[in-house]
Amino acid sequence: MSADPKLVIFDTDPGIDDTMALAFLARRPEARIAAITTVFGNLDVETTTRNALLLRAALGLGDVPVAKGAAAPLHGAFGGGVPYVHGDDALGGVAAKLAERGDPGSVDPRPAHQVIIDLARANPGKIHICAVGPLTNLARALAEAPELPTLLAGVSVMGGAFGTNGRRGNVTPVAEANVLSDPDAADLCATVPWPIRFIGLDVTEELVMEEAYLADIAAKGGADGQLIWDVSRFYQAFTHRTRGISGVFAHDTLAVMHVLAPDLFTMRSGPVRVVTNGIARGESIQRPDANSYPPNEWDDFPSQQVAIGMDVPRALAMFAETAFR
Amino acid sequence: MSADPKLVIFDTDPGIDDTMALAFLARRPEARIAAITTVFGNLDVETTTRNALLLRAALGLGDVPVAKGAAAPLHGAFGGGVPYVHGDDALGGVAAKLAERGDPGSVDPRPAHQVIIDLARANPGKIHICAVGPLTNLARALAEAPELPTLLAGVSVMGGAFGTNGRRGNVTPVAEANVLSDPDAADLCATVPWPIRFIGLDVTEELVMEEAYLADIAAKGGADGQLIWDVSRFYQAFTHRTRGISGVFAHDTLAVMHVLAPDLFTMRSGPVRVVTNGIARGESIQRPDANSYPPNEWDDFPSQQVAIGMDVPRALAMFAETAFR
Ligand SMILES: [Ca+2]
Ligand SMILES: [Ca+2]
Repeated sequence: MSADPKLVIFDTDPGIDDTMALAFLARRPEARIAAITTVFGNLDVETTTRNALLLRAALGLGDVPVAKGAAAPLHGAFGGGVPYVHGDDALGGVAAKLAERGDPGSVDPRPAHQVIIDLARANPGKIHICAVGPLTNLARALAEAPELPTLLAGVSVMGGAFGTNGRRGNVTPVAEANVLSDPDAADLCATVPWPIRFIGLDVTEELVMEEAYLADIAAKGGADGQLIWDVSRFYQAFTHRTRGISGVFAHDTLAVMHVLAPDLFTMRSGPVRVVTNGIARGESIQRPDANSYPPNEWDDFPSQQVAIGMDVPRALAMFAETAFR
Repeated sequence: MSADPKLVIFDTDPGIDDTMALAFLARRPEARIAAITTVFGNLDVETTTRNALLLRAALGLGDVPVAKGAAAPLHGAFGGGVPYVHGDDALGGVAAKLAERGDPGSVDPRPAHQVIIDLARANPGKIHICAVGPLTNLARALAEAPELPTLLAGVSVMGGAFGTNGRRGNVTPVAEANVLSDPDAADLCATVPWPIRFIGLDVTEELVMEEAYLADIAAKGGADGQLIWDVSRFYQAFTHRTRGISGVFAHDTLAVMHVLAPDLFTMRSGPVRVVTNGIARGESIQRPDANSYPPNEWDDFPSQQVAIGMDVPRALAMFAETAFR
């Protein structure tokens, strides 16, 4: 007797690992996708929204609304993204092939943050947000609907680098890409009283999907498996060039896993702040509840949960055993 | 046939671990103390200078100049120190007993930074600075004598927390006490082209001098051993209360060890910056040379060395085998 599927809003900047995460989320029985909301990040929001529509079509999710979100962080301008990581189309070169399949449909008329608010109000206590891009849409939703924290079942974020496991930043020595893309939004989201969980580089760099593992999924996983393989080639080349790894980090997929199977993760409790200026801009810092310090900038903020460990073999098995088709 | 002893300026804010480090430095054949320079830090500079004089007398170092240094950081005011760590006298309560032994002599008429400059100019290429307090004196010396970097044999600092080994800050979640006490000075010292080495919490919290180990030194080490025991009782109580450890971290002693026996340490190379404002104020951040990042705030600064590992058993043996008397 299984529980009702969890209702998930997937807030995303697709993105290669976003694509893999969405395919995984789409095929898991533990979840139902309530909406896909887009945000700038890996590339501009026009491109990430186009990609979200292409992925909705490719995965056969025609009844799921796609809503376009923020084009830039709360303060300042969009920095141009990371085409050297995700390709000029942010889909590792597969967007053109996906586009050949015909009209991918259109976006919801509402902005992303409004869709988040509407779904939360319509399903109080039921919605899980899985945020795998900059947190700008969530910050906007909080600003427009201060009651949002009381309406959600949970917020699982791929973001941050908390300095456990020796893991620090991937864009600067201390900053992870999603958080650095809008540190003000991240600091806001980290400090409101809602159940936000950060799945950061501390764990996402612990799990590598090796080339042979992905080839197996490509062979057995039908069109989904082929998409996962095709989209990940560009990223694997980048990861091999910069890190010497013949495989990819699954980053965003781990935030989905946190929604579906939180017991895969070991979490640490403590208030989280994000540095918004200076050389450490974009650094995410948790003050562990277990440590004592003199009065500091983490006082008076609620404890949140940060992933500091995970069951890598079980996570790899969960992904591989997904009913890709 | 051993090399000539290294000429060491001990820049210090005594301080319990400063006391242990100075006793160690005074008894090692590998070094000769050229001067003791004081700085605010654990307490105000009046107190740390008085303590330096008391320690000079207690250790029989009558011919070593003691020079009083900075009373406050480069910017802002002295924050009041940490009497809950080092005691109201910053010597764990032993200052009064040391003072009963008579006049401890007086300070050099020159300010600390001038003594550093004078000794460096008089001994080009020979002086090692061992800095175990806030880096204000060194920053002042650099400002007055821009040629200083060309004159020194090395600068070994107890300071920083670089996020390796899971170690972060001890005063805030990211800041170590010495660096936080004057982050502007630390950032200046980290970014000039001189051979500065940071021995931070990453390694100093790896080495605990347990109560039994210290009792053995007290039993065998004569007056020095008794001083090390007496001074460390207050700090051990603090460490036990806050960290559950029945012993003390040797912090400053490890910077002395780095001067005398650098091969005790595993170092990592890369430019170092210090955060001077915001919630991460006082955080020390190294960009490892082995990692690649987009253009960033570490560009154009020289690579420095940061301790990321050490041979704890050999370090403990070196301290225990010192000819304390
Ligand atoms: Ca993403
Ligand atoms: Ca000290």
